[in-house]
Amino acid sequence: MLDAQEWADRPANPRSERDGALVNAELVFVGTELLLGEILNTNAQYLSRQLSLLGVDVYHQVVVGDNAARLRAVLNQALGRADLVIACGGLGPTDDDITREVAAEVAGRPLQLDEGLLKGLEAWFATRGRKMTENNRRQCMVPDGATVLPNDRGTAPGLIIPAAGAKALVLLPGPPNELQPMFARHVVPYLTARSGGHPMRLVTRTLRFVGIGESALADGLKDLLAGQTDPTIAPYAKTGEVHLRLATRAADQSEGLARIAPVEAEIRARFGRFLYGTDDEDLAAAVGRLLAERRLTVATAESCTGGLVAKRMTDIAGSSAYFRMGFVTYASEAKVRFLGVPAELIEAHGVVSEPVARAMAQGAMERAGADVAVSVTGVAGPGGGTSETPVGTVCFGLAARGGDSLPPGAWAERVWLHGDREGVRERAAVHALALVRRYLTGQLG
Amino acid sequence: MLDAQEWADRPANPRSERDGALVNAELVFVGTELLLGEILNTNAQYLSRQLSLLGVDVYHQVVVGDNAARLRAVLNQALGRADLVIACGGLGPTDDDITREVAAEVAGRPLQLDEGLLKGLEAWFATRGRKMTENNRRQCMVPDGATVLPNDRGTAPGLIIPAAGAKALVLLPGPPNELQPMFARHVVPYLTARSGGHPMRLVTRTLRFVGIGESALADGLKDLLAGQTDPTIAPYAKTGEVHLRLATRAADQSEGLARIAPVEAEIRARFGRFLYGTDDEDLAAAVGRLLAERRLTVATAESCTGGLVAKRMTDIAGSSAYFRMGFVTYASEAKVRFLGVPAELIEAHGVVSEPVARAMAQGAMERAGADVAVSVTGVAGPGGGTSETPVGTVCFGLAARGGDSLPPGAWAERVWLHGDREGVRERAAVHALALVRRYLTGQLG
Repeated sequence: MLDAQEWADRPANPRSERDGALVNAELVFVGTELLLGEILNTNAQYLSRQLSLLGVDVYHQVVVGDNAARLRAVLNQALGRADLVIACGGLGPTDDDITREVAAEVAGRPLQLDEGLLKGLEAWFATRGRKMTENNRRQCMVPDGATVLPNDRGTAPGLIIPAAGAKALVLLPGPPNELQPMFARHVVPYLTARSGGHPMRLVTRTLRFVGIGESALADGLKDLLAGQTDPTIAPYAKTGEVHLRLATRAADQSEGLARIAPVEAEIRARFGRFLYGTDDEDLAAAVGRLLAERRLTVATAESCTGGLVAKRMTDIAGSSAYFRMGFVTYASEAKVRFLGVPAELIEAHGVVSEPVARAMAQGAMERAGADVAVSVTGVAGPGGGTSETPVGTVCFGLAARGGDSLPPGAWAERVWLHGDREGVRERAAVHALALVRRYLTGQLG
Repeated sequence: MLDAQEWADRPANPRSERDGALVNAELVFVGTELLLGEILNTNAQYLSRQLSLLGVDVYHQVVVGDNAARLRAVLNQALGRADLVIACGGLGPTDDDITREVAAEVAGRPLQLDEGLLKGLEAWFATRGRKMTENNRRQCMVPDGATVLPNDRGTAPGLIIPAAGAKALVLLPGPPNELQPMFARHVVPYLTARSGGHPMRLVTRTLRFVGIGESALADGLKDLLAGQTDPTIAPYAKTGEVHLRLATRAADQSEGLARIAPVEAEIRARFGRFLYGTDDEDLAAAVGRLLAERRLTVATAESCTGGLVAKRMTDIAGSSAYFRMGFVTYASEAKVRFLGVPAELIEAHGVVSEPVARAMAQGAMERAGADVAVSVTGVAGPGGGTSETPVGTVCFGLAARGGDSLPPGAWAERVWLHGDREGVRERAAVHALALVRRYLTGQLG
């Protein structure tokens, strides 16, 4: 994994040489509810990702409760080690909302009532027919010299408070639906202006692989990974998938992508058959695109995944163009009745077996009138495993009519997937989607 | 919001007077991917909540990247201000996984190869037919005097490393499916032992409601919410559900629950018919329990939810006892062919209509030979809405054979659900499960 420090230290990055440029930021999240685990800190991911895209490095995120002494210590430490401190939460009207007061004190800028804000807030309450409380007046107090950031969705305005050494403290409201538009509309322009109007953007390209493990991929790219400088290459293991993230710093998107292109081409030359999509295209979307391009329809027959493969296929808007029918045949009897799997086949081979998986796919294809069908039958656990089919054993089937240069036929395979019940089911759904992709890209038969 | 400090300072809490007792913890999360916003830090919420339940206070959470100097500084600061430091992530086999080495250094306890761990890891790779790399050996290095925490789901063991002043550094793997069982099985007993076996526990009881909104529930409990002191009552809005969390501090679980019981009884008297379960029992599990108790089987017929209702029902281990068959009839033609919905009915009323939903449920019940069937047909978006059936319109059907004091019949209803495509589908799945619950609890017909 590439360390954020390496970015900041690169001599090629002109920002650090520009006076007053923001090189790195620290994020502070204020709220005892975060320390009690009552809410999930989605703001941390949102702000980190946005700052990363803007080329601002983040070295620390800190969560602290609604306690003045600890918040003061955290803000002082953050201003000591970062150029920009973004503090979120604690701007509300109640007594435990202390961020505004503590931040003003830390920046050495006394609070003053902002008459314009007060008028605006009075109007906000008037149009909603609600009564403004004395506490809401606290939200109209602004540190001397601070910039007010309007809040379109709530009563707490944000603030940019100048601090010593051309540093700044940015205060944002905690609710994500208030924080996100405020950041996008008011903080991003501020950051761009601070970096001379031309932030060095982090340009990234994600290559998404399925059917190959992280270590096998890393092994086959050993030379590229060892010699990486620009772009950097970082592998990430996902459930049943591996992603490679290529990243570079550039003035704009096209300059960055041009630098990434030759490395991507080399990786494609080596592992293209496992590469199903790029950037945000997930596996179900990639399979859907292949089906739509070839004008083929698909059906699913699921036992242990219980509808998850169908659910993932229909996650995709527009999937009605190719998704014909899903059978969730959890019980053996349902496999016989609705898919026409011969009862003798189940008796002879067991319900988790390649012959049964193949027959399920064939039955689904024929009965649904689909061009392709995929099936899953396995032992997701926790119970139900035997010595012959331990928990994690999953069999997959694929049946296809053929055509458009693809062969007709029926295939089956048996794999062992690790994880708990949920993990086995999720990996099985990925494997089923990947099997359809292998067929559609001519890798089966 | 109650400040965590207040808990720790309570004179009634005997832990702070006991030698070696763990009064507070600091959480450290290691990973540049967190600082880049590539993953959501769900471990922060999980650990904070668990520690809160155990009566261990958390004053700071810190996220830091895969950088030795910064991690060292963060761990030193954490050990300076907390009794227990839990560091998550960075225990993997690759070069950027540095937590084990840095923690050993900070605690002043040199690493030594643990032969038992090495044998276990070799066996782990052997049974999976995978090759163990030299890097995996690093995962068998243990600081002098540390306790090894077994990892049932991965290759990285956890560690409890003693530090100066009866403090401790606990290292846990980053993947939540490895971290959570390890915390529950190995760290909780350690914390309980450290607090003399009798921590002042935070005892909680969660009441789970479906079919009623947060504001309606809060309104009907206004007097209880206003007068709450002990236990405290906190409402949480979930997707399609509302949870009420009752909490109190007590020496043990039964003392706490005894204090909670009268408040719970009063809430049940007012809103019992919306209360589907308590604590960790989710809606699909509650519906499954009702089906199993009554020895009834169920089938599903899904259009817009695309398999999600079947998936949620089969999430439950043991669901094969009652889950008979799931039809994912995404296309209109599939509704006609596999559920026997008359094509004229679809033409006359539209595919998103109460008559079609009712016919889907009846068809699913009859064809699957199930006792009860539930159906969903709606417009999840983003496109496909009309002025008569805007995006978010969803129709539900329920058909039942009756018996065991429940009436036979077929019902349908039309609702409007808010949210994007995913939100509408998730709320629709909750509504479908809730509809089955209403039937099974005698609230329908």
